Amino acid sequence: MTPSKPAAVVLLSGGLDSTTALAIAQAHGFEIFALSFRYGQRHVHELVAAESIARQLAVAKHVVAQIDLREFGGSALTADIEVPKGRSTAHMSQGIPVTYVPARNTVFLSFALAWAETLGSSDIFIGVNALDYSGYPDCRPEYIAAYEAMANLATKAGVEGTQKLKIHTPLISLTKAQIIQQGLELGVDYSLTSSCYDPGPDGRPCGECDSCLLRAKGFAEAGVKDPLYLRFGMA
Amino acid sequence: MTPSKPAAVVLLSGGLDSTTALAIAQAHGFEIFALSFRYGQRHVHELVAAESIARQLAVAKHVVAQIDLREFGGSALTADIEVPKGRSTAHMSQGIPVTYVPARNTVFLSFALAWAETLGSSDIFIGVNALDYSGYPDCRPEYIAAYEAMANLATKAGVEGTQKLKIHTPLISLTKAQIIQQGLELGVDYSLTSSCYDPGPDGRPCGECDSCLLRAKGFAEAGVKDPLYLRFGMA
Repeated sequence: MTPSKPAAVVLLSGGLDSTTALAIAQAHGFEIFALSFRYGQRHVHELVAAESIARQLAVAKHVVAQIDLREFGGSALTADIEVPKGRSTAHMSQGIPVTYVPARNTVFLSFALAWAETLGSSDIFIGVNALDYSGYPDCRPEYIAAYEAMANLATKAGVEGTQKLKIHTPLISLTKAQIIQQGLELGVDYSLTSSCYDPGPDGRPCGECDSCLLRAKGFAEAGVKDPLYLRFGMA
Repeated sequence: MTPSKPAAVVLLSGGLDSTTALAIAQAHGFEIFALSFRYGQRHVHELVAAESIARQLAVAKHVVAQIDLREFGGSALTADIEVPKGRSTAHMSQGIPVTYVPARNTVFLSFALAWAETLGSSDIFIGVNALDYSGYPDCRPEYIAAYEAMANLATKAGVEGTQKLKIHTPLISLTKAQIIQQGLELGVDYSLTSSCYDPGPDGRPCGECDSCLLRAKGFAEAGVKDPLYLRFGMA
């Protein structure tokens, strides 16, 4: 009998980073429980991407949790504020972008924690990145460390001391180019991923929002063509 | 012109504790934004109670957020495990009860944080209590302190240093009897509150689950009749 693999909950947005984080978790020998959210995001196409990725990478289970942050307002990704386009990456890293969703990673990690606890899993993967784009407060290492400390006081296993929860952030100090290179080595099919904040109904990237520009810069620096752009004849 | 009151987000389950916490927040001069959850709870009647309370106490806004923790399973409050009845309070405090919902307060506080951030509020109230009933890991002071530390690293205001988020736990070291006494002094109408884990369709308490027994003990020790029991002719 082969021993069963340990379970890990992976936050999967359907973008380049979370897909790479999932592939890394798999390469580490975890059985994957992928968690996505329908949260009133403007770029709901990413959920189509998340489903394709979950299927192709044969995860144990993929849950799309439905939550509604729109009731609280406050961001261009969920409200009617315009998504900024054509900005330089230098400009992007100044201050906190309007596409910031209040407490989003805190909400997402909390659901991941609930699922991990139910599964008896002590491993959560999140594809946050602090290097390339540090405008989001909840993508920084000190935030993740504080979340992990809190989570270990929040749960049965933490209190009983039987299991220490670990939040894995395998991308946190990588450049976008390094993330892409690592994903390609693991065989990630980036044509399935969706990064754009304002895509067409078929998932065609706008090519101009912050997220598209960062992705393009990453592929350029990695010296490869973006298979998503090839798919849409945009390369 | 009178200066406007500061806003506070109050987690309102519709039970005795959260209703008292709301009244205390109001007495401290906050304008109340009350937050309840439809999370697949068996005792959904508490949401009827929460609405009556929000109306009677004239909160600025009451949001019932819909989330689904059932997809993750794991508790008698959301799944098909039987709610234990007729236990002694000594028995209740041994170990973590099956009515524990995985990461529930972590999920609830995360939504409260998202709303507080959008409102520009730095105050969240939660009616957790560590004294009378310490079986839930996420009701302890060390958990709340860790959550607050994490929250102050998660948000725009925290990062920019403009606003320090405070999680208020006015009931954390009170007995159930003290909570009731304080609520009665503030004019709380406990006939509107719902504590039972397994109530009838009209909200009639079962009188036998852990929550009913703790409530009964609290009213007995406070030396007053429970107005909810009077309402149902059970006193």
